[in-house]
Amino acid sequence: MKNVLFALIPGIFVFYAGSGGAVDIPVSEATAECLECHASIHPGIVQDWQTSRHAKITTKQALAVDGLARKVSSKTVPDDLQGSTVGCAECHTLRPDAHAGTFEHNGHDIHVAVSPNDCATCHSIETEQYSKNIMSRAYDNLDANKLYHKLQLSINGRKEFKNGKIHFEPADAATKAETCYYCHGTRLKVVGTEIRDTELAGELEFPIIEGWPNQGVGRINLDGSLGSCAACHTRHAFSIEMARKPHTCKECHVGPDVPAFKVYEASKHGNIYSAMNKSWNFTAVPWTIGRDFTAPTCAVCHVSLLVNTDEEVVSERTHQMNNRLPWRIFGLVYAHPHPRSPDTSIIRNKDGQPLPTSFDGEFAAEYLIDEKEMDARRKNMQAACLNCHATSWVKGQWQRFENTIRQSNAEILTATNIMRDIWQKGLADLNANPFDEFIEKKWTDTWQFYANTIRFASAMGCGGDYGVYADGRYQLTRTLLEMNDWRVLQEKVAAKSNPD
Amino acid sequence: MKNVLFALIPGIFVFYAGSGGAVDIPVSEATAECLECHASIHPGIVQDWQTSRHAKITTKQALAVDGLARKVSSKTVPDDLQGSTVGCAECHTLRPDAHAGTFEHNGHDIHVAVSPNDCATCHSIETEQYSKNIMSRAYDNLDANKLYHKLQLSINGRKEFKNGKIHFEPADAATKAETCYYCHGTRLKVVGTEIRDTELAGELEFPIIEGWPNQGVGRINLDGSLGSCAACHTRHAFSIEMARKPHTCKECHVGPDVPAFKVYEASKHGNIYSAMNKSWNFTAVPWTIGRDFTAPTCAVCHVSLLVNTDEEVVSERTHQMNNRLPWRIFGLVYAHPHPRSPDTSIIRNKDGQPLPTSFDGEFAAEYLIDEKEMDARRKNMQAACLNCHATSWVKGQWQRFENTIRQSNAEILTATNIMRDIWQKGLADLNANPFDEFIEKKWTDTWQFYANTIRFASAMGCGGDYGVYADGRYQLTRTLLEMNDWRVLQEKVAAKSNPD
Amino acid sequence: MKNVLFALIPGIFVFYAGSGGAVDIPVSEATAECLECHASIHPGIVQDWQTSRHAKITTKQALAVDGLARKVSSKTVPDDLQGSTVGCAECHTLRPDAHAGTFEHNGHDIHVAVSPNDCATCHSIETEQYSKNIMSRAYDNLDANKLYHKLQLSINGRKEFKNGKIHFEPADAATKAETCYYCHGTRLKVVGTEIRDTELAGELEFPIIEGWPNQGVGRINLDGSLGSCAACHTRHAFSIEMARKPHTCKECHVGPDVPAFKVYEASKHGNIYSAMNKSWNFTAVPWTIGRDFTAPTCAVCHVSLLVNTDEEVVSERTHQMNNRLPWRIFGLVYAHPHPRSPDTSIIRNKDGQPLPTSFDGEFAAEYLIDEKEMDARRKNMQAACLNCHATSWVKGQWQRFENTIRQSNAEILTATNIMRDIWQKGLADLNANPFDEFIEKKWTDTWQFYANTIRFASAMGCGGDYGVYADGRYQLTRTLLEMNDWRVLQEKVAAKSNPD
Repeated sequence: MKNVLFALIPGIFVFYAGSGGAVDIPVSEATAECLECHASIHPGIVQDWQTSRHAKITTKQALAVDGLARKVSSKTVPDDLQGSTVGCAECHTLRPDAHAGTFEHNGHDIHVAVSPNDCATCHSIETEQYSKNIMSRAYDNLDANKLYHKLQLSINGRKEFKNGKIHFEPADAATKAETCYYCHGTRLKVVGTEIRDTELAGELEFPIIEGWPNQGVGRINLDGSLGSCAACHTRHAFSIEMARKPHTCKECHVGPDVPAFKVYEASKHGNIYSAMNKSWNFTAVPWTIGRDFTAPTCAVCHVSLLVNTDEEVVSERTHQMNNRLPWRIFGLVYAHPHPRSPDTSIIRNKDGQPLPTSFDGEFAAEYLIDEKEMDARRKNMQAACLNCHATSWVKGQWQRFENTIRQSNAEILTATNIMRDIWQKGLADLNANPFDEFIEKKWTDTWQFYANTIRFASAMGCGGDYGVYADGRYQLTRTLLEMNDWRVLQEKVAAKSNPD
Repeated sequence: MKNVLFALIPGIFVFYAGSGGAVDIPVSEATAECLECHASIHPGIVQDWQTSRHAKITTKQALAVDGLARKVSSKTVPDDLQGSTVGCAECHTLRPDAHAGTFEHNGHDIHVAVSPNDCATCHSIETEQYSKNIMSRAYDNLDANKLYHKLQLSINGRKEFKNGKIHFEPADAATKAETCYYCHGTRLKVVGTEIRDTELAGELEFPIIEGWPNQGVGRINLDGSLGSCAACHTRHAFSIEMARKPHTCKECHVGPDVPAFKVYEASKHGNIYSAMNKSWNFTAVPWTIGRDFTAPTCAVCHVSLLVNTDEEVVSERTHQMNNRLPWRIFGLVYAHPHPRSPDTSIIRNKDGQPLPTSFDGEFAAEYLIDEKEMDARRKNMQAACLNCHATSWVKGQWQRFENTIRQSNAEILTATNIMRDIWQKGLADLNANPFDEFIEKKWTDTWQFYANTIRFASAMGCGGDYGVYADGRYQLTRTLLEMNDWRVLQEKVAAKSNPD
Repeated sequence: MKNVLFALIPGIFVFYAGSGGAVDIPVSEATAECLECHASIHPGIVQDWQTSRHAKITTKQALAVDGLARKVSSKTVPDDLQGSTVGCAECHTLRPDAHAGTFEHNGHDIHVAVSPNDCATCHSIETEQYSKNIMSRAYDNLDANKLYHKLQLSINGRKEFKNGKIHFEPADAATKAETCYYCHGTRLKVVGTEIRDTELAGELEFPIIEGWPNQGVGRINLDGSLGSCAACHTRHAFSIEMARKPHTCKECHVGPDVPAFKVYEASKHGNIYSAMNKSWNFTAVPWTIGRDFTAPTCAVCHVSLLVNTDEEVVSERTHQMNNRLPWRIFGLVYAHPHPRSPDTSIIRNKDGQPLPTSFDGEFAAEYLIDEKEMDARRKNMQAACLNCHATSWVKGQWQRFENTIRQSNAEILTATNIMRDIWQKGLADLNANPFDEFIEKKWTDTWQFYANTIRFASAMGCGGDYGVYADGRYQLTRTLLEMNDWRVLQEKVAAKSNPD
């Protein structure tokens, strides 16, 4: 082991070479022990951590920061954590009794998967806010919804061709973990232990955790908490720069179902980001509009604490993330006001289906935010817009956007009307599973891909190719025509088959 | 208002902290008044402007630049504009009588939408060149073309399912503004005024402008001029760096209809740009091949003033943009020599349709540039290529490119031959609208998406995935096969339905 | 010619302004002569070269580097090459007799296309390794495979609509050069000479080379050698930074058939790269995990010499590139263990077809690496993973990945079972060409696009949109349903047509 960065003296202070000269930042004795081996065997993790703010100041110093620049939202932090940096041991030995699967490892009680409830030790407000974020419930919002189970089965299930039909069998756990639940989060579960012969310490026992690895936004952790802060705050640098750049969001918001990143990157805002971000300041807290950046990234509109050049707060930091959003533009089946509760599995539409809208487009209003809350959220969002755009601009943009929500919902009603006709005539089977036939997939395309794309394009600058030719109105129209073309032909052929 | 950047003294000089030390750059008294409020309420706009060249030197200083480095192309600029930077007032109070909707605002006659004819005050040659650019006519080239109206209706129109058919109703103005006309530009029109209660100045009256906001390339302005320089020269930094980077062009050239950016980014040139551009000089004027950059961006080939390392001019700056382009590779329905006039709505093919080619592929030659002009443009373009590539390389590349134009046109003729057979047999209706049935959309796919992609791939390096598997020849072939498969099946079913 | 960088004195030393002050680096007399003209007429090439390591040190200096930092792998280099930089003449006059088309040019015997066997003069080990890379055989692996000829014909062939059918004619040479062979490489062939009137030297004779330009990975060179180092080491900067960034690989690995770049860019690794790479060190040799970079690029996993922070070798440099890969996840028709030989045209499956798997999914095992070799390659790859991830993480990831290989192969068997039923019933024709009908293209979509995408998504982080909605399981399922929907309808219509 030739790594010389860590000259370990029981005591315990470890030399850290920060930018602008060397400073001594104390790491805890426990963390120093971790580093003794892991600096060598996991240099990627350790080096990453060394670039983090966690490695550069003590918790006490972080607590001493006052005002908008403060990053630790908890009023107090246990004394024994204050004297050192936030190192390996500070997180991975925290609350050992709370976590299933905590294991003894060279004299320390370790848990592998650090959870939001661990992070809450210092970042309590963010954890609390995040628990109100739909994303925190992403596991059960999908897994506890019987209709979505049918959707999943019809996509990720194993398909076999038997007797002229395609049969669907449920996907195995490994497939589940890398499809929907990769982003939604898996359920972690300790299913045993194993002994591994390690390079530096011989035989050691480790827990076997089902659903691991996973950093999904709604991961069910071994302490029962929900989510993974590392989904966005990538371990182990926990770089605010990274969380503020749009690439982080892209990990889950890139496909045709939620083409947020693709639309952003082709928008004027994305253009400015791509061309000019190298000279922006991505680490300043608070984040000053115009000075630190000149166009929004995802975080600007949805998360970050923003101030203007007069140092007045423009937008409060939020980890609820939808509290600047009146509308949920992801169609289920139609765009709709945001759900009241982050637990969307409780929603029932007028037909008793677990959906925020009925198949004919009616909102499940009692489960959704009301006009007043929508207004408040619209204003929250526009507060940021208005720092770079005049009122008439922002107003015009929002009029178009909300018009597009209505229009795209109307188009999806047209698609559903065709589909209903097909179901009623027995050309497809609604009841068994509304998503598992070819023509049903075409219907799904309209609301899961094209209407969503149109709305995202509208939201992020109101236009461009994503609203028309890149999975937009062109493809939506073509699919409507295809659905009806299929319907007519099937009817004709059926009529010939059953001449009466 | 705590903003201290602007210590406003009637006089009027405002401190500007430029790079390399502080210098005093005079802003006009009028602009200083604007800044007094807007620095606070629109810090994004003001900060952006402060990074611009407009904020860093006076017009007089700009006029004093000699030779190729000169950015102001007008020989003279009115005296009263020369003494200050180009600030808010210089543009937004210019030519007040020329603009409909000019309004009194704290003692100044303001217009919201600055137009190319405003910019022409200093940049007259670019404005003149741009007026010869097809893009400047993008509004009427679309809106005054009856056939394109049918195309628009069949994409952006509202669709309803009635009596077993899909009916199209014209899109509303808001939808129009965020679909085709988002890029093409809207027609601005003052439709009234409104009084708004402003934060800093109480009740104020503002014009209501239909079609606003919009920065489309062919916007019809309130002074009757055409276009928006801000489409590429993003307000309010007007950064040449941004205009020279490909992200700006991507805003309108990303969809499958014009996949210029996607093809570029996957080409060798795009690879070099992505990997190495951080060390390039994007602000040098003139722009030196090899020294300032080592691979072309969009601007290099189509717009910028280029010199070699001997400081000899390789390519003249042009804002006509197609004067280095012999071919228009965007199929309407076929690729064709560039139109002579930027007003393409005047074109008629041999069948009287407002298209540069007929459905059977014949060029509407009298409206298109001739061989001699094509040769001149080919040489214009190749002049840049030859600085990094030997003659044999450039020749080989162009032979392939022009071969691909011919071949892809031949494939589109095949697609059209199938379509004509379908029309002739009454399986689809040509006359009502050649674009509004499922099978017609398939035909449209071939020439609007796949042939275009193939040609762009060929143009930018002659090859790669975009020529084959990424909306290229694979998809073109699959669609031809699908069209014929559909045709055969429909004929069979029709025959059964009408046995005679 | 005003270029002052090269003050040419027969002798010969040329001033080179390196970073950190001026140093005199000797260029050879021959190269100095080249530069005399080409610095002016090809400034892009010359400037690029000037930034290269080739221009900054002599071969002797490069040979003097010891240990892991050494870049010249040949033990010795001919004496006459040691005293100067590697300039124009060093490469383009090397081994003149070996190259067809060598021509006299101002007193020097020049060849246009520098080949791997030229590069081997200094980089012998890399050249040797590359010859074991499947890519080096990319030309004949495609061209000498009769089944792939049918695939090519059915994509790139010229299509005509005659007598109600689509006829395929072989593509011309120019089309071939810009489709498959753009990436696979063309066969270079001297077909004559031409005299050109040059700007600086009057009339000169040059060879005419068929297949030029091309930088494909399996190019057949005029000295008979295979490949082009410039495919990745872009001429004439030969920047290791560029080769290590993922944009280089994107040039050929971007389409839906091999969506490596798209998947990477949306993965956690790609996110870290996109957000943070500006502070990484892309030129260090060896390349230190955690210190020089904090997430892998393509080169990290597949090519580069990696060390940990203890300066221990983690991964040996390889230009074979597949020797860290147990599986070839590109389906032909199914994913399979990597071929033993880089020459894949020799492979025969159990049915005698030139494919590594049979249509029913059986591996052509004798031509593929065995379990032991697969284990060794798996370990080679995991060695890098384990520097940033614990054993349980890496194990979990690989279990999912190899599960997905099995599952996706099973889905392709389902697709093929439907297709076989279609062939057996005479609804499509297997024998003439299994790829040239509409329904066959749908089948091709499943294994050439969707299964590949699913596997790439699994390989690079196990999940996300590319595994589901972005050409993943959703599209795979939809296509299976479409194939069967088509089958059922065709059977019904055929039954009506032939009532018995």
